[in-house]
Amino acid sequence: MTDVAVLGLGAMGLPTAARLVGPFTVSGFDVSPERRELADGSGVRSAASPAEAVVAGGIALLAVRDEAQVRESLFGADGAAAALGDGGLVVLTSTIGPAAARALASELADAGIALVDAPVSGGPARAGAGDLLIVVGGSGEALDRARQVLDRLASTLAVVGEHPGDGQSMKTVNQLLAGVHIAAAAEAVALARGLGLDPGTVVSTLSAGAAGSFMLADRGPRMVAAYEVEDVEVRSRLDIFVKDMGIVTDAGRTARVPLPLAAAAQQLYLLGHTAGMDARDDSSVVTLLSPPPTER
Amino acid sequence: MTDVAVLGLGAMGLPTAARLVGPFTVSGFDVSPERRELADGSGVRSAASPAEAVVAGGIALLAVRDEAQVRESLFGADGAAAALGDGGLVVLTSTIGPAAARALASELADAGIALVDAPVSGGPARAGAGDLLIVVGGSGEALDRARQVLDRLASTLAVVGEHPGDGQSMKTVNQLLAGVHIAAAAEAVALARGLGLDPGTVVSTLSAGAAGSFMLADRGPRMVAAYEVEDVEVRSRLDIFVKDMGIVTDAGRTARVPLPLAAAAQQLYLLGHTAGMDARDDSSVVTLLSPPPTER
Repeated sequence: MTDVAVLGLGAMGLPTAARLVGPFTVSGFDVSPERRELADGSGVRSAASPAEAVVAGGIALLAVRDEAQVRESLFGADGAAAALGDGGLVVLTSTIGPAAARALASELADAGIALVDAPVSGGPARAGAGDLLIVVGGSGEALDRARQVLDRLASTLAVVGEHPGDGQSMKTVNQLLAGVHIAAAAEAVALARGLGLDPGTVVSTLSAGAAGSFMLADRGPRMVAAYEVEDVEVRSRLDIFVKDMGIVTDAGRTARVPLPLAAAAQQLYLLGHTAGMDARDDSSVVTLLSPPPTER
Repeated sequence: MTDVAVLGLGAMGLPTAARLVGPFTVSGFDVSPERRELADGSGVRSAASPAEAVVAGGIALLAVRDEAQVRESLFGADGAAAALGDGGLVVLTSTIGPAAARALASELADAGIALVDAPVSGGPARAGAGDLLIVVGGSGEALDRARQVLDRLASTLAVVGEHPGDGQSMKTVNQLLAGVHIAAAAEAVALARGLGLDPGTVVSTLSAGAAGSFMLADRGPRMVAAYEVEDVEVRSRLDIFVKDMGIVTDAGRTARVPLPLAAAAQQLYLLGHTAGMDARDDSSVVTLLSPPPTER
């Protein structure tokens, strides 16, 4: 059985690792002892460091939050890169942007390690069910090796280019749309309230027509609920979009493409961060535009 | 048979009037002699003025472009209001915003004329097929009278409030989402090109997932086509959103609701106007963000 090391056992990494148990022998590492303990309970062999989690020439699947954590996992103290060594494969499921992925691929190649760029879309529940959308940049033997693992995680696996960075580019465009559509749904719910309409009726009436989006149907009802319950269930943290709209606008700036709506959405998520909403559900941005009645 | 006068025989008004022929005796007026001639060919009796088109105490359906044309049709030279008189009914299908509709209702009420606020969503083809989404503010006998006519035009008729302005409020929220989603699709296609991805693949891959919207699926392919053909077919004119994003941001300002994305989208449509794109398909905004290769 192939060994796979999952680095990062957070909201996405833990269900990802658990989903791989069975077809693969899975080890894992997370900086949090609590997450390592949870992993052990899911059939994942937890390790004391990234270096201990991997085997020489094996596969490391990265499921950490951002570029800094990717670099720490690979090149930090007891990092995975030196332990993987020549013939190793890194499967990058984190969203870090195309430029960062290309730089990473180049550094890893110098050590004989291949990178397959495979950012994922879909939350923890879909990760655990093997129902993710995964957009891949890769080719050749590295892609074949990665595909065994990714096929277990994805309901839709789209190879969108041959090179590391291509998957990140597609994911960046995905996040532009997702982040803008959430913010647009927030504006719609806030304006509906401001105009004296019933926001729930607005969401249900408009979701089916020309104004519809996945995010209006998904986040709209949670935005309406934000006025009725103190804290809606956190299905997708707001700080993901603080990070990802930064990747989107960086990519636009580098490619010299004006993105006025993405830039406005980025400011809205930054306002959410400033308001202390990082760990809340991203639908909470609606309360920035239309505060709940103060009597609650 | 009930008489209905359709004022405004443009892209939406003419198929609307033609759809009513049969169940109703339909007269119509447009400032353009060419449109009046087309209407005569569709079984509509064209009149020389709004006043001549209506009968005393009858129904006038307004299908003109904006508030200025609504006011000219009703209160201008040979306007319809004086000819309708006490007991008349105005059915407003144009998008003019909630404040303007309420002011209009108040003025008409002084002359004994009722207003049913019934802005429509859907293009000319759907108007001709009776397949519009119509969001209505109205009540009582006026609503009952209007409903006979609107039922012939709508596949979905949602009475969203009792008062004139309520339909406009819902339509305003609809246009916020539609206008932002079109602009977001344009940013996605432009960024995809800038990152070296195939924009057609991006649109088809992302339309089905969390990044999907009606507008991405509808306008996305036309945006991709904008790089291959000189002028894509005009299915929805860009200047509609120049007008409607103005209504959206006015409504937000009046209700004191910040709308940063709608404001950014409004600027994009205004840039389209400035670039001479008023009469082009609204999908053309993509070329503002990512110009076609100059060799075309």
